[in-house]
Amino acid sequence: MLQLHMLPSSPVSSPNPRLLCFRDSSSSPPLPLRGHSTLNPRKASRVSLARAPDGHFSLKCRQSEYFDQQQRFASSTSSDNSTSFSPSGGGTMSPKVFVGHSIYKGKAALTVEPRAPEFTSLDSGAYKLSREGFVLLQFAPAAGTRVYDWSRKQVFSLSVTEIGNLIALGPRDSCEFFHDPFKGKSDEGKIRKVLKVEPLPDGSGHFFNLSVQNKLMNLDESIYIPVTKAEYTVLISAFNFILPYLLGWHAYANTIKPNDPNRANNANSRYGGDFEWSR
Amino acid sequence: MLQLHMLPSSPVSSPNPRLLCFRDSSSSPPLPLRGHSTLNPRKASRVSLARAPDGHFSLKCRQSEYFDQQQRFASSTSSDNSTSFSPSGGGTMSPKVFVGHSIYKGKAALTVEPRAPEFTSLDSGAYKLSREGFVLLQFAPAAGTRVYDWSRKQVFSLSVTEIGNLIALGPRDSCEFFHDPFKGKSDEGKIRKVLKVEPLPDGSGHFFNLSVQNKLMNLDESIYIPVTKAEYTVLISAFNFILPYLLGWHAYANTIKPNDPNRANNANSRYGGDFEWSR
Amino acid sequence: MLQLHMLPSSPVSSPNPRLLCFRDSSSSPPLPLRGHSTLNPRKASRVSLARAPDGHFSLKCRQSEYFDQQQRFASSTSSDNSTSFSPSGGGTMSPKVFVGHSIYKGKAALTVEPRAPEFTSLDSGAYKLSREGFVLLQFAPAAGTRVYDWSRKQVFSLSVTEIGNLIALGPRDSCEFFHDPFKGKSDEGKIRKVLKVEPLPDGSGHFFNLSVQNKLMNLDESIYIPVTKAEYTVLISAFNFILPYLLGWHAYANTIKPNDPNRANNANSRYGGDFEWSR
Amino acid sequence: MLQLHMLPSSPVSSPNPRLLCFRDSSSSPPLPLRGHSTLNPRKASRVSLARAPDGHFSLKCRQSEYFDQQQRFASSTSSDNSTSFSPSGGGTMSPKVFVGHSIYKGKAALTVEPRAPEFTSLDSGAYKLSREGFVLLQFAPAAGTRVYDWSRKQVFSLSVTEIGNLIALGPRDSCEFFHDPFKGKSDEGKIRKVLKVEPLPDGSGHFFNLSVQNKLMNLDESIYIPVTKAEYTVLISAFNFILPYLLGWHAYANTIKPNDPNRANNANSRYGGDFEWSR
Repeated sequence: MLQLHMLPSSPVSSPNPRLLCFRDSSSSPPLPLRGHSTLNPRKASRVSLARAPDGHFSLKCRQSEYFDQQQRFASSTSSDNSTSFSPSGGGTMSPKVFVGHSIYKGKAALTVEPRAPEFTSLDSGAYKLSREGFVLLQFAPAAGTRVYDWSRKQVFSLSVTEIGNLIALGPRDSCEFFHDPFKGKSDEGKIRKVLKVEPLPDGSGHFFNLSVQNKLMNLDESIYIPVTKAEYTVLISAFNFILPYLLGWHAYANTIKPNDPNRANNANSRYGGDFEWSR
Repeated sequence: MLQLHMLPSSPVSSPNPRLLCFRDSSSSPPLPLRGHSTLNPRKASRVSLARAPDGHFSLKCRQSEYFDQQQRFASSTSSDNSTSFSPSGGGTMSPKVFVGHSIYKGKAALTVEPRAPEFTSLDSGAYKLSREGFVLLQFAPAAGTRVYDWSRKQVFSLSVTEIGNLIALGPRDSCEFFHDPFKGKSDEGKIRKVLKVEPLPDGSGHFFNLSVQNKLMNLDESIYIPVTKAEYTVLISAFNFILPYLLGWHAYANTIKPNDPNRANNANSRYGGDFEWSR
Repeated sequence: MLQLHMLPSSPVSSPNPRLLCFRDSSSSPPLPLRGHSTLNPRKASRVSLARAPDGHFSLKCRQSEYFDQQQRFASSTSSDNSTSFSPSGGGTMSPKVFVGHSIYKGKAALTVEPRAPEFTSLDSGAYKLSREGFVLLQFAPAAGTRVYDWSRKQVFSLSVTEIGNLIALGPRDSCEFFHDPFKGKSDEGKIRKVLKVEPLPDGSGHFFNLSVQNKLMNLDESIYIPVTKAEYTVLISAFNFILPYLLGWHAYANTIKPNDPNRANNANSRYGGDFEWSR
Repeated sequence: MLQLHMLPSSPVSSPNPRLLCFRDSSSSPPLPLRGHSTLNPRKASRVSLARAPDGHFSLKCRQSEYFDQQQRFASSTSSDNSTSFSPSGGGTMSPKVFVGHSIYKGKAALTVEPRAPEFTSLDSGAYKLSREGFVLLQFAPAAGTRVYDWSRKQVFSLSVTEIGNLIALGPRDSCEFFHDPFKGKSDEGKIRKVLKVEPLPDGSGHFFNLSVQNKLMNLDESIYIPVTKAEYTVLISAFNFILPYLLGWHAYANTIKPNDPNRANNANSRYGGDFEWSR
């Protein structure tokens, strides 16, 4: 029987429609650190003391949008409040955990957060991975000394392959990802996001530059943040840790246990012709 | 007392009888991306919308053979339905999980899946690893734009050492594995599989080329798929994660717990002459 | 609505106010291994036999300060004895575990220990990372052959980014971190700690040099310890392991489970415009 | 109060009294693969079919000494049968698991196995690492085609630092470890073991050479086994996985959980002067 597995010609929600990478562009010109021309910080009305994940104390103006978004997201992806986007789930009911690693610099801050993959239950009671996880980058421009305006943040979702790109990026390599959040929808092309990762002129790290062109709002914005070699190393270490989870391979690995009585005797057929040759 | 541990001269089911690796073949000629001469896509009769693990939506024609095989396999290795190939087992009854990471390209798709090792229970109640796990590669030729014909897929099982080969492969290295799924059986030599991994001419990644020669069916087929450096990095990251599980070392590691009251006092004898010198 | 996220201009408890790194200083002069001029070992009154974590037997004079500090610390950070600094916690009540990897050399010993991150519970019942973990370095000068004076130890807390620095350090690179334990307090500037990591002249490893200037006690002390390439490799392997835990990403990863029934159907909205574009 | 931590001048059971490493000896002469002059295989009386962990079938003559040793070891380190060397322990009673990764070659076989660290319980109910784990190498000479004489095996325990040495070993580096299993005992010096790891002449991997000089038995034996780059990569991947377990850091990491209600409020004192400056 013929079995075809088709992908539609214009896939909905493709995370990386275009991707350009330039390697060892040793003659790359210095990147001018341009200001954020549209930056317009205003005073916050309600201020409270909070502690950022990296140990700095910070003044926050009400609950930051960062968690607002997560709350909103949880609402939009769940039919009720008890189960939501953040992986917790039926079986073991582990509490939701919000983690994010932040890099604070003079002109901007960058927060990096993992996002869980999704599984679908099969009729057999088994589960299969239905969507790979990703890593969410959140860029916020500075609104003053050590103050970041999260209401003006821009986000960018790194797919598994884009993460692989960043892991493999050499100290002199550069990388560029293009996203259209409305790709495959009626507003396709209205918003164009480009994430560029380029080596710092002195070789001490990389620039992360997210630029967003929004024709709906006639907006054209760029957020730059320099990431030192040490900070990049932390990101790569975290990416290498989380990647198998984004692929769901940890869920398979966790089921590998010695005490399965029925496996030993029948194992012989595994390497046979039937397995490698199934026609 | 004499103790011999023999391996038969023609081992059944050896996963890698021959293995060739060429390093830094900087003068490797460009690889022509030949078409699949035997490719003969037909229309699918039943089509449904499904979502591939990487987030793309896809039209699938009934349950793909991919899961069919797993179902068939589960049946062939289990005496009943409640326990099966996929590691779940007696103790904790974790549900089965199917994971696979796919790379979709113009001419073919490649899905990579881990396969669990096997354990045998000893009379003492302990377990020992009886067979190392592996990684299953599944190649499917394209049957049109973003459509892959999984009925024509070819599979190749990477042993732990072959995985080590791919992990260590430099950007200019190439690698070649030879498998005979009927090795040690009456049909030995009738089917010959060769997986070649060769650097792309422009250094941007590697070609994976699985060629299968089947004298039983007078078939000679080749499936090529280019894998970018970023995609290769994801594979290596996943391989590095899963390797200790394929060796079963995670099962040993999971038993290392601080609260074993009887170990501390007797530990002294461990480094003694008896341990390193047991004659 | 405007949302600002501010960091105060002089943050309390910043772990790395200044950081200098010099790369591949191939002409770095040989480091003279100066003695510890203030070293003044005295005889211990109570001596008992103990075993160090690396398997050496050792004579210890009462409970070493190493664990004393941990006890004291537990007391100072907990309101009662049942819950304390070391992560154990309410839910599962796993016992506290003290681990540390030590390097013993002729002039000094170095012990490396992970320190857990901190989480805050939110009103929703979820948790968020409130402070990243770190790695504590403890340097003790030798007080004789294979005897170390832990009463004279100096400690240095490596932040996540400083750990990234050490992970990325090439065999010819050097690194320098500056800490002020009273930064942001009234005694700011009274104590100045500098950790230098420099390549050994023969390229066989790195020198770790912690120097502490204490104006309160009119003290100026330096502890040097050479770390071989092999020992450094062990540290890096341990750092790479522990880093995701210091970031709290393991806690998020542990919540990723296949059996969450409500996630599959609503997942579609995740990649939509709303997620990457939230204005 | 003065606190001294002493190590005796001749420590019992030091795993690596001497260690030599030669880097990039590009002019290293080819290693002659000498035969095992004392090799004297005899026929086995009782033969049964068994499956080796790598999937090969093998003829084994009764239970191999490999597991005999483990049984004997379990007996010698435990006061009763219910608790033993292999980490299982009081709390969770996970079953013992024996794992080992083997490399079979023409002249010899090499099996690599992890060995758990040890913990001591403190009066407080906490645990501390009392001895780091190690990796046991077992070399058996070939006694014919695909037959290995495990009664003639030689073993070598790799300490954590020696593992670090092997992880860091470049393709052209060599390494040498010296062990005396009776070091610090009356028979010190009677047995001398040397493990050499040297690059293969063609750069395709490394030779592992264990030579044992036993003056008690007037024995001088050497076992060589070539390890390809791919096989070495598997070992390194396994070593990198197991190293944090050998250090016990996994046990600490496993206690890091978000739901510890008492940590958040008192955390502020952690970075204070008291922590980094404890005099």
